[in-house]
Amino acid sequence: MRILGISGSLRRDSHNTRLLRGVRRLLPAGAQLEVFEELAAIPPYSEDDEHTWPPAVARLRGAIAGADALLVVTPEYNGSIPGQLKNALDWVSRPAGASPLAGKPAAVLGASTGVFGAVWAQAETRKVLERIGAVVVQRELPSAQADTALGDDGLPLQAETRAQVQEMLFELLGLTAPQRLAAAGPRLGGVAA
Amino acid sequence: MRILGISGSLRRDSHNTRLLRGVRRLLPAGAQLEVFEELAAIPPYSEDDEHTWPPAVARLRGAIAGADALLVVTPEYNGSIPGQLKNALDWVSRPAGASPLAGKPAAVLGASTGVFGAVWAQAETRKVLERIGAVVVQRELPSAQADTALGDDGLPLQAETRAQVQEMLFELLGLTAPQRLAAAGPRLGGVAA
Repeated sequence: MRILGISGSLRRDSHNTRLLRGVRRLLPAGAQLEVFEELAAIPPYSEDDEHTWPPAVARLRGAIAGADALLVVTPEYNGSIPGQLKNALDWVSRPAGASPLAGKPAAVLGASTGVFGAVWAQAETRKVLERIGAVVVQRELPSAQADTALGDDGLPLQAETRAQVQEMLFELLGLTAPQRLAAAGPRLGGVAA
Repeated sequence: MRILGISGSLRRDSHNTRLLRGVRRLLPAGAQLEVFEELAAIPPYSEDDEHTWPPAVARLRGAIAGADALLVVTPEYNGSIPGQLKNALDWVSRPAGASPLAGKPAAVLGASTGVFGAVWAQAETRKVLERIGAVVVQRELPSAQADTALGDDGLPLQAETRAQVQEMLFELLGLTAPQRLAAAGPRLGGVAA
């Protein structure tokens, strides 16, 4: 099972990018996470440019099409989804009725250095993904005070929070291939307990 | 009184850009609307790049600082604000506490070819502007079925809707300079009646 991960932050030392990379350690055997590294290269969306996908857009569309699931880990800017992340999703949503996200399982995580943990950005991202047709995990997992709450491995220091992240991954993977997940279940369940 | 206008669409024949340009015809004497033409040149926001504003970002910040009010006219993409418009607002929101939008009067219009007239994009844009500290006109003015509802001048064909747009402009200008608006009032009121 292949998960494509996108961080909504372009900052080099982004807590969200660290969290996204850390998530790899929580995956069961047989599941892989590939991180999309070209968010900054996605040009501003315009319907006029749809006749030929810009190269970075074509690669994002291909990466989503080739993945079993999408995981977005996003900061919050001004109470909502980061503009460049939304811009990438706008491209991926097109053309109407033929988005590689249609029917694709997706989950959203988010971290912030404040006390709310990017909850509004997560909510808006889930809404947008649903509009595009993704099958979105209905969990909210705010990671607040990320500058002190995340460890060197990018994961939450609190075992309970780490377990919640893993439960979300479990649910995401469950949407992609229930029969394969059943085999991996015991390992996941053990860590999450 | 100077209003800076931003269209959330980069499409050449955008209904929203037409509407934004058309709005000029509804302004009272003494009020001007300048359209920001460089939305496509704004790079993806990253906190790492804040030490030197990218040129297009610097020009947008200067244009907002030099205007008495902001008017955003936006389409709706995937149930929310267009990514590149949000990206521009993310830049303008920084640095925290020193945004040129802080305390700036702002209003939001939107058009779509569907039946809802970009109401969710307008709502999210108002929310984001408020988070940044703008003083936002609390009116929603969906312009639905824009492909047939807007005239050659970009304005709504229906006199009632046109009057509502003008009332919104009146309210926006009222937030900038009540004493100057009082002088322009009779002309505005006459057209809107």
